[in-house]
Amino acid sequence: MKMAFDLACMTVGQTGKNPAVGAVIVKEGKVIGMGAHLGYGKPHAERQALSSCSEDPAGADIYVTLEPCSHHGKTPPCTEAIMEAGLSNIHYGAKDLNPKVSGHQVLADAGLNVFHQPDEAIDQLYAPFFSHLERHRPNVTLKCAMSLDGKLALDDGTSTWITGEAARADVHQERHVHDAILVGGGTLLHDDPMLTARIEGGGVSPVPVVMAGGHVLPDGLKIFEHPERAIIYTTNETNLKHDGICEVKVGEWSPEAILDDLYGKGISSLFVEGGARVLTAFIKEGLYDRILTYVAPKIFGESRHALYKEQSASMEAAVQLEMVDVEKLGSDLKLTYRKA
Amino acid sequence: MKMAFDLACMTVGQTGKNPAVGAVIVKEGKVIGMGAHLGYGKPHAERQALSSCSEDPAGADIYVTLEPCSHHGKTPPCTEAIMEAGLSNIHYGAKDLNPKVSGHQVLADAGLNVFHQPDEAIDQLYAPFFSHLERHRPNVTLKCAMSLDGKLALDDGTSTWITGEAARADVHQERHVHDAILVGGGTLLHDDPMLTARIEGGGVSPVPVVMAGGHVLPDGLKIFEHPERAIIYTTNETNLKHDGICEVKVGEWSPEAILDDLYGKGISSLFVEGGARVLTAFIKEGLYDRILTYVAPKIFGESRHALYKEQSASMEAAVQLEMVDVEKLGSDLKLTYRKA
Repeated sequence: MKMAFDLACMTVGQTGKNPAVGAVIVKEGKVIGMGAHLGYGKPHAERQALSSCSEDPAGADIYVTLEPCSHHGKTPPCTEAIMEAGLSNIHYGAKDLNPKVSGHQVLADAGLNVFHQPDEAIDQLYAPFFSHLERHRPNVTLKCAMSLDGKLALDDGTSTWITGEAARADVHQERHVHDAILVGGGTLLHDDPMLTARIEGGGVSPVPVVMAGGHVLPDGLKIFEHPERAIIYTTNETNLKHDGICEVKVGEWSPEAILDDLYGKGISSLFVEGGARVLTAFIKEGLYDRILTYVAPKIFGESRHALYKEQSASMEAAVQLEMVDVEKLGSDLKLTYRKA
Repeated sequence: MKMAFDLACMTVGQTGKNPAVGAVIVKEGKVIGMGAHLGYGKPHAERQALSSCSEDPAGADIYVTLEPCSHHGKTPPCTEAIMEAGLSNIHYGAKDLNPKVSGHQVLADAGLNVFHQPDEAIDQLYAPFFSHLERHRPNVTLKCAMSLDGKLALDDGTSTWITGEAARADVHQERHVHDAILVGGGTLLHDDPMLTARIEGGGVSPVPVVMAGGHVLPDGLKIFEHPERAIIYTTNETNLKHDGICEVKVGEWSPEAILDDLYGKGISSLFVEGGARVLTAFIKEGLYDRILTYVAPKIFGESRHALYKEQSASMEAAVQLEMVDVEKLGSDLKLTYRKA
C-alpha cells in the first residue's frame, strides 16, 4: 500500500479534477504490475497496473489507494477490469465518498475478497476531493498575490506584477485544477482579466464567475470571450443585457448563496482570486478550505487593498489557519494554509 | 580550503560576535590537524588546529577561512602561534576588514609565504561581520512577529503569544548573537519586556536600548534589572531621573543618530524588536540589513499595528527586499529577507 501511495503522490496535480491514485499488483510475493492514474480522462490506476503486468494477474492481490470505481465516468468501471483479470484480493486505502461509487460492494458481491486498509496519509491526500460531497458546497481555495505586509495592491490600486513569473505560472496551474474561478466586480473592471488557465500544452480553463455586486459590466470584457460561459451574480438589472453571452443572475448574492448555486451546477471546486472585498467576504463567513498566498519580497505599507478588511475583536476571534506547505517560486514564496 | 569552510559552517551561530572560522593543517599532502573557533573568548581556529596536530606542524601549510588575527583581543594573536609552530605557507580565504588586523602583513614580514585565496561562499559567510566596518554603523536586524496579513498586534494592542514556542526560542537565539537590542517607548510601557537572551545554557544578553521619544518611563521597569546597563534615547528630560541605573540621553534622536551613537560605543550589531513605529522609522530611512519576520498562521485584519505604516506612492517606491531564507518553526514561519 505504501508503494501504491508513492505512485499516487507522483501524479498529484496532473490528474485534473480526479484524485491521484496508485495501484500495485502482487502475486506470490512478487510485484507483477504497477500503475497510476496519469491524467483526467486517461485510464485509472487499476487498468494501468493491469496492463503493465509481467505475468497473468489471475489470482493476484491488488493494492490501490482509492476504492475502485463502479460507475461509468470518463472511462468504464474499474471493477469490471478487476473481475475480468481474475484478481482475487482487493486492498484499498480510502473509501470513495462519491455516492455513485460502491466498488467494494460490487467486488464483494462478485465473490472477491475486499479489504479496506485505512491509512492517514492516504486519507489526507483525498480529503479535498471528498469534502464537497460531505459539505454540499464546492471546495473553496482563496488565492492572493501580496506583499510581505499583506497588501494586494498599493493604495491607488496598482497591483500589476506584484509577483514574478514562477508564481504567475503556478497560479495558472491552480486555475487548471479548479472547476470555476471567481473574482469581484471591482477586480473585473480594474484588470479586465481573461481568467483562463494558460499552462504548457493547453490547460483546462475554469468557468469564470463574477461576484459583481452593483457594478455595471461594460461590453467587450475579455471574460465574454472565455471558452466557458461566464456566470455573473449581480444586484444590478442593467447587467441583464449581457444575458446570452453569459449567464446573468440578479439578486442579493452572498458568498454562501453563490456557493449553493454553483454546487447545483456541478461545480465541485472554486478558485477565488480576489479582490480584497471578495476575499474578506469569504474569509469572514468561513467559506474556504485553503488559502494560497503568493508573497512577494516587497513591503507596500498602508493600503486599503488588504487581504482581510475586517477587524478582529480578540486573539480568539482572529482568523485561525494551519500551515500546509511552503514553496519558493523564484523570488516569491507560495504559502498554503488551510482553515484551522 | 573547502574543508576549512565546512568546519567554519559547523559553528555558525555559536561564536557570538566573532565570525565562525575553520582551519586545516596539511603536511606532505596529509591533513595533520584541523579545528574551528568554538565560541566567543575561546581559542581561535588556528590554535585549535595547531593543538590537534598528529605530528610536528613545522614546515606545514595552513588553510584558514579568515585572515589570521595579529592583535590582542580576548586571546593572543594567531600570527604568533603560527610563527611559533613554524608553519611555512599560510592560505586564507577572506581578508579581515577590521583595521586592527593585518595578519597577512605580519606573517609576510616574518618571511612566511602568505596566499589570499578568495572564495565567494566564504565572503558571504563573513559579509555581516564586516559590513559595519565599511558603513560605520552597526548591522541592523529588524524583527517582528506578525500575522499572515502583516499585523504586529490586534488594533487594541493585544499581541501576546502571536507565535509559538519554537519561534520565541529562535528570537532568544537571535538576541544572543546581537550586541544590542532596541525597542520603542510604547512597546516598553505596554509589554515591560526583560530584553534578555534566554537560551539553553545561559546566553549573552544584548545591551537594551530604548527609543523612548517623549514617553515617561516609570520606576521598576524590568530592563532596569537587565545584566547590561540600558541606554535610553529620549526627548523628555523627566527620564533623567533614571540616569545612574541606566544611561539617559536627552535630545532629538533619529534612527541614524542612535546608530551613530551606538557605533561609537562599540556596538556592531543591533536587533530592533519593534513596535510598529520604530520598525517603520528604520524601514523608511533604509537603516537595516535584514528583516526577520515570524509569521503566525493567523489573519488579524484591520489594525493600526502594522509592520510598515507609511504609504508607497508607486511600485518602484515600495520597499524592495530579497528573500534569504525560509524556515518552519512549529506552526509558524521564519522568513528572512535582506535589503534589495
